[in-house]
Amino acid sequence: MTLETTLAAIGPADEQAMAAARELQGRLTKPAGSLGVLEELSVRLAGLAGTCPPPMPEPAAIAVFAGDHGVHAQGVTPWPQEVTAQMVANFIAGGATINAFARQVDASIMVVDVGVKIPLHGGENLLEANIRRGTHDLAVTAAMSEDEALTAIQVGLSVAGALVEGGAKCLLTGDMGIANTTPAAALVAAFTGASPADVTGRGTGVDDETYERKIDVITKALALHEPDPAQPITTLAAVGGLEHAALAGFILGAASYRVPVIIDGVIAASAALVAAALAPNSVAAMVAGHRSAEPGASVALANLGLTPLLDLGLRLGEGTGAALALPLVASSVRVLREVATFDSAGVSEK
Amino acid sequence: MTLETTLAAIGPADEQAMAAARELQGRLTKPAGSLGVLEELSVRLAGLAGTCPPPMPEPAAIAVFAGDHGVHAQGVTPWPQEVTAQMVANFIAGGATINAFARQVDASIMVVDVGVKIPLHGGENLLEANIRRGTHDLAVTAAMSEDEALTAIQVGLSVAGALVEGGAKCLLTGDMGIANTTPAAALVAAFTGASPADVTGRGTGVDDETYERKIDVITKALALHEPDPAQPITTLAAVGGLEHAALAGFILGAASYRVPVIIDGVIAASAALVAAALAPNSVAAMVAGHRSAEPGASVALANLGLTPLLDLGLRLGEGTGAALALPLVASSVRVLREVATFDSAGVSEK
Repeated sequence: MTLETTLAAIGPADEQAMAAARELQGRLTKPAGSLGVLEELSVRLAGLAGTCPPPMPEPAAIAVFAGDHGVHAQGVTPWPQEVTAQMVANFIAGGATINAFARQVDASIMVVDVGVKIPLHGGENLLEANIRRGTHDLAVTAAMSEDEALTAIQVGLSVAGALVEGGAKCLLTGDMGIANTTPAAALVAAFTGASPADVTGRGTGVDDETYERKIDVITKALALHEPDPAQPITTLAAVGGLEHAALAGFILGAASYRVPVIIDGVIAASAALVAAALAPNSVAAMVAGHRSAEPGASVALANLGLTPLLDLGLRLGEGTGAALALPLVASSVRVLREVATFDSAGVSEK
Repeated sequence: MTLETTLAAIGPADEQAMAAARELQGRLTKPAGSLGVLEELSVRLAGLAGTCPPPMPEPAAIAVFAGDHGVHAQGVTPWPQEVTAQMVANFIAGGATINAFARQVDASIMVVDVGVKIPLHGGENLLEANIRRGTHDLAVTAAMSEDEALTAIQVGLSVAGALVEGGAKCLLTGDMGIANTTPAAALVAAFTGASPADVTGRGTGVDDETYERKIDVITKALALHEPDPAQPITTLAAVGGLEHAALAGFILGAASYRVPVIIDGVIAASAALVAAALAPNSVAAMVAGHRSAEPGASVALANLGLTPLLDLGLRLGEGTGAALALPLVASSVRVLREVATFDSAGVSEK
């Protein structure tokens, strides 16, 4: 699927299915509203599927998009850049947190190299789709060309398509890229108009000095590129990253198939802003997995009108917050599919 | 096990195992602290098990304790009392929300009648342990005798023991009882000293008039019984319920086996206060599943020093919030058991 046909395929939520889900929630053997945000989530998922009850979001598939970042040269993180490739090897070997969480929730993992600097050595669940070996330094020049951004989006679209065609009923965003919270914060600032100080966090845990430098780098980059949110691809190319671009495509792909996509942390949330700028209806497919410790994630989710399911102070990335949220998403759907009505169970109403 | 031997068996958390878990978390391939509250949870579970890593909390078993309440006569809820028995039948038939959630997380369910007013018709996973067919009206007299409270605690202990001896590695609290948020709020007020207005919620969703009446009933009951938190059994008998008492025993049973017990909503949280009053070390076994919409639950958890894992606006009971939290508990343990260290994975540190 090309980006154009994908964008054209992304329609609005089905109001009739949503109304049916709301009506059904009111007849199930529980007090109305007693499942809190899970009730509204089930309604949204019915609207996305266009049917009530919606299908179970299982099996689920996680795609971890990996890339490196020229802005690493600005000293925005204490971690060496080689850790991106090392962690990708860890994912492939099954030793990372996302692997443990994926086993817990019975989700598959595909690792996609869209921009890792150091060549990888392959592996069973690694997709080699490297577009360039790390972006340019966004503090100095555009992080990538618009063609590169579009190619990365296309990779994300293709991965979503392959996973859904392969049977996935729910997609989960994952990411790996040392320094990638810097382009994520820049994207959030560019698309929401929030100030760099309000969207910049400590990423993997930087000290005060590095934190100030990070805000400064983002402020200067925004002044340099003057990104226009009405030009999403140009903005993405200027201050984004290759995994951010691929995630935007991945989210759009999910939306075009009307399959829910669970948004992990600030990297995916910034990519979700790109997706929403390209196709506003794609928000109907998005489920916010958690409230990341990164402030930019909260700003992005609020801008998208999404309420996060979890709030555990996570700031790991990899897709970990999305994986932890999956059972909640499945449970919300299961209520519509399996819980008896007052009538059918012979339970009195108040 | 008798209550006395159980209380004697409940020791403190193992500091050495906790230190080992903290040290291991620091060596795993992720930034230190990046898993937020799940890291501290894993440390607590190591302390409970007395070993690092602790065992996986699977398989898990939910016990739903059911009872009726004389205080129903005060008009504290719009739901008819017969709904308790009807919902128990729904649990046994597999049609309630807790059944759907239990299937999602692969947990077993045992339903325990400790105080249902209407005789039940049996069923495969129903344990008949009825102590009396509903409590007395706590607005008028003690809800039950101390002997009845002790018998209910003993039922909870026995159920915990049977489930753990049967292989359960994690216990989840469940409850059913029309009007049972009223005794729960009274217990929370009695054990924490909070005012009735601060611990009383709208339960299944009562209107303003009923809500005011509920606060008034609790205020008058506390004035009538003058419960002394230093006398936990007397307090429980005066203003509690049979399922609350059984849940206190269930929690103490889990603690005596050093098995984690996931606390659901305000009913279980009020029972946890009773358990903690009888055996302060039992708090080490408690995991707060979620922040219920009932304000009394938050007051109780804060008093116990517990941080809830989920905050979804749930107010259903049945054990639903505990079931939803189970995968998070399992994931936190899985990190300690399965994630590679920087050394073993060849990942550079910052």
